[in-house]
Amino acid sequence: MAKSKFEYVRDFEADDRCLPNCWVVVRLDGRGFHRFAEQHGFKKPNDDRALQLMNRSAQTVMEELEDIVIAYGQSDEFSFVFKKKSNWFKRRTSKFMTHVVSQFASSYVFYWKDYFQDQPLLYPPGFDGRVVLYPSDQNLKDYLSWRQADCHINNLYNTVFWTLVQRSSLTPEQAQKRLQGTLAGDKNEILFSEFNINYNNEPLIHRKGTVLIWQKVNHVTMKRIKIPKDPAEKEVEVTRTRSTVVLLHCDIIGDQFWEQYPEILSDDS
Amino acid sequence: MAKSKFEYVRDFEADDRCLPNCWVVVRLDGRGFHRFAEQHGFKKPNDDRALQLMNRSAQTVMEELEDIVIAYGQSDEFSFVFKKKSNWFKRRTSKFMTHVVSQFASSYVFYWKDYFQDQPLLYPPGFDGRVVLYPSDQNLKDYLSWRQADCHINNLYNTVFWTLVQRSSLTPEQAQKRLQGTLAGDKNEILFSEFNINYNNEPLIHRKGTVLIWQKVNHVTMKRIKIPKDPAEKEVEVTRTRSTVVLLHCDIIGDQFWEQYPEILSDDS
Amino acid sequence: MAKSKFEYVRDFEADDRCLPNCWVVVRLDGRGFHRFAEQHGFKKPNDDRALQLMNRSAQTVMEELEDIVIAYGQSDEFSFVFKKKSNWFKRRTSKFMTHVVSQFASSYVFYWKDYFQDQPLLYPPGFDGRVVLYPSDQNLKDYLSWRQADCHINNLYNTVFWTLVQRSSLTPEQAQKRLQGTLAGDKNEILFSEFNINYNNEPLIHRKGTVLIWQKVNHVTMKRIKIPKDPAEKEVEVTRTRSTVVLLHCDIIGDQFWEQYPEILSDDS
Amino acid sequence: MAKSKFEYVRDFEADDRCLPNCWVVVRLDGRGFHRFAEQHGFKKPNDDRALQLMNRSAQTVMEELEDIVIAYGQSDEFSFVFKKKSNWFKRRTSKFMTHVVSQFASSYVFYWKDYFQDQPLLYPPGFDGRVVLYPSDQNLKDYLSWRQADCHINNLYNTVFWTLVQRSSLTPEQAQKRLQGTLAGDKNEILFSEFNINYNNEPLIHRKGTVLIWQKVNHVTMKRIKIPKDPAEKEVEVTRTRSTVVLLHCDIIGDQFWEQYPEILSDDS
Repeated sequence: MAKSKFEYVRDFEADDRCLPNCWVVVRLDGRGFHRFAEQHGFKKPNDDRALQLMNRSAQTVMEELEDIVIAYGQSDEFSFVFKKKSNWFKRRTSKFMTHVVSQFASSYVFYWKDYFQDQPLLYPPGFDGRVVLYPSDQNLKDYLSWRQADCHINNLYNTVFWTLVQRSSLTPEQAQKRLQGTLAGDKNEILFSEFNINYNNEPLIHRKGTVLIWQKVNHVTMKRIKIPKDPAEKEVEVTRTRSTVVLLHCDIIGDQFWEQYPEILSDDS
Repeated sequence: MAKSKFEYVRDFEADDRCLPNCWVVVRLDGRGFHRFAEQHGFKKPNDDRALQLMNRSAQTVMEELEDIVIAYGQSDEFSFVFKKKSNWFKRRTSKFMTHVVSQFASSYVFYWKDYFQDQPLLYPPGFDGRVVLYPSDQNLKDYLSWRQADCHINNLYNTVFWTLVQRSSLTPEQAQKRLQGTLAGDKNEILFSEFNINYNNEPLIHRKGTVLIWQKVNHVTMKRIKIPKDPAEKEVEVTRTRSTVVLLHCDIIGDQFWEQYPEILSDDS
Repeated sequence: MAKSKFEYVRDFEADDRCLPNCWVVVRLDGRGFHRFAEQHGFKKPNDDRALQLMNRSAQTVMEELEDIVIAYGQSDEFSFVFKKKSNWFKRRTSKFMTHVVSQFASSYVFYWKDYFQDQPLLYPPGFDGRVVLYPSDQNLKDYLSWRQADCHINNLYNTVFWTLVQRSSLTPEQAQKRLQGTLAGDKNEILFSEFNINYNNEPLIHRKGTVLIWQKVNHVTMKRIKIPKDPAEKEVEVTRTRSTVVLLHCDIIGDQFWEQYPEILSDDS
Repeated sequence: MAKSKFEYVRDFEADDRCLPNCWVVVRLDGRGFHRFAEQHGFKKPNDDRALQLMNRSAQTVMEELEDIVIAYGQSDEFSFVFKKKSNWFKRRTSKFMTHVVSQFASSYVFYWKDYFQDQPLLYPPGFDGRVVLYPSDQNLKDYLSWRQADCHINNLYNTVFWTLVQRSSLTPEQAQKRLQGTLAGDKNEILFSEFNINYNNEPLIHRKGTVLIWQKVNHVTMKRIKIPKDPAEKEVEVTRTRSTVVLLHCDIIGDQFWEQYPEILSDDS
């Protein structure tokens, strides 16, 4: 068979292994989600169904793939952090990013109907992804802080913007103009004085995004046992400890989070 | 806002642009599709519903993304070829591969029910992908020939193997043993003399896989026009030429295919 | 011995193999050669000793390393082209560039005294280098054309500039101002009308730079032979054909050069 | 001028910036130094002139280039460590390695006559180089330990081997056979019991290699000053502190070295 004659083309594949001993971050973004959100009637500034579907898809990625120790999501983006010592698929860059985005994308469509009962999915959405390496724990924490700071900035803006549009009957252009050059304090002030909204009381999921980590959780189940020489079966409680993905909506910029969950950055994670 | 303090982490992103003037090939593979096929009752050796779903997903990738001039698929893999001069997303490697695999994965779930009416999708499947560059037209043709030769080798083997299992009541182990060391001619002979099967009459989609290319197609539609001073509307035929993805199940190893479709390799494609 | 404990650090070395079937170009540049030229009394606008030393060093690189089919140099830079099919050191990028620059640098110091008899070398000079891949023959020809066009532009400018400074007693600032915004034709005109210099009669090595290629050359040597039954030895001429590096100062932008030396781009070179 | 037409070839240069916040190590090796050593009459197992010339060349590299905080050499190899935060030439991989090897190679030839007065340099030697990144301080220390452990292993072997050849009149083949399968303790025992050599008394430069670091050194110079209203000039001592490259031949595997010179790994270095 002529196979051998063509097989030389395999040598054109580049070795794309990630530098060892670095945190491997895969970040994905929805493709054209501005239009996608409009076509599927996403609520503004935040659609909780859409956020929950993102979180559900991210949870699937964490459960299906190996070595992910933390994930962080907001809006239409999600970041997944593989542990420093991960040797999954020999640390090949392409494997990390394609497994993450394909699992996320198929999960997004698969779980759509669980969150959007009345809104059919009109077409299959796309996502892009990239891999970034961070050598030190501080670099990684700063990366995640960067994303959460971005969440805060965008959400504060969007909250004021859509409140102006929805409750003051400003056109989008007028609202945009109104907000030009305003600082965070100004925006808080507009919300409070004009709409009696205390931004700090807005839902944490909107202000902080979503953090996914692994936690040991006790599962209590009933188990039937048979005691020798006792004709009757009995039921006893059995407690099992299992690692489970848990969702948090908390600050990850300050030290408190990392002090509370030191195992995330530990080598054994 | 503390944004600027963290923004330095952006500098850790590597520039991963593909070398210009090379064919950019993205190949994707199903993750754990052996098990996936069993769990979803795929017919052996070939499940036409599964192949058609792969093709439908690949078609969506070609239509949604830019600059793909040809795609080739077989079994649970698909290769997409971006044109040499493509400058899509500045030729970033990560963009090419993540857009392809995410669009493919979401389409696979989205269109599942169109092909597997009686078989619900049990969980969202994953795919991996990679990018390979080919500098010359001959390298690219040899790459595609390599994949089609692989299709032939695997399909011939699988056809004999499953015929032995399904019609001779051999166990899989016995069938495997029977085929050990056999050449293509031996396998053809088993099929013909024992089961009266001429392998060359097997369906082309199984033997050759699927090729997707762009073709100009005439679309004839009726259009209502109004002629001035004539109170009645009239209907006329309007012919429009549009580029459409067409599916072929033909040989792409020989020269004939490339002579028939010279525009695929031309710079203007 | 504790060796094994540390040996894991080898895994941090990245595989940096060049894409197969591409021309591999290594270009080197003198580091801080403006200052180097001044300190070593280089003549302006061109110092023939310095150019010849560059050429001698480049010749050594071609002779010592493998698979270089053409080299082109001008001013304090030199480009070396490894053939497409080269598998020297498994095409490792780092090997290509470090062998070229180190051999060039050591040769530059080694041969200095052959060209600068009265001018001692004051300190060891540095060079930097890079690797660039070109997939097609046209890309490679355009690369070399780019460097020769650069040579022409710079040499025309420098010729007028230094003629103004040396023969019109303009200060460098005045000469620079005089030339601001002038086109090639203007510069030719200044040289001709003010200094009676026809730029086209300037030495080819200055206007075109230096091309190094391999040529078969006949070497005629005398050899003593002894004829049986004849007591006396006789001397006969023996002609041997050997590949030798030859230096040319010719145009490589037009087609003529490539038509005259088709073996440079041929796969067998 | 046709320049613009060709300038597109610049886009084929890849961006090869090193990941930030990692130690950048450039290691160089002599090319064909086995033969080079023989042709230049290097003493076996160690030629002090050759080692000193290597060290002199490495010192020049440290002084001429920027951001090198430590270098380590043995035999015909040398490693240079650029500080984590270095932004020299935007951290381009090619710049790091080509500047190091070219400066080393030209220095080697330039300073040759200072160490090999009676032995002319027969031809310009070559070196190859590579860049390796190390994310953590421990990784870097382990890298340097790996090289020093290698020095120890090779030097112990070579010391016994050449003692057997030079003082027992064994042929190289016989000496090699004698040493096959011996451990470090066996080799020490051969040296001590047969030749009365205590390996631990061998020169440190042979057993440990050479470490180059920056140290603040006081330079005391005399300066003439003139005191107002005093007609006579006076000479006073002036002490200046300057950073100088110093050579050490000490253990760098244990903690002591790093505790003694904490500034090497500090961010401010």
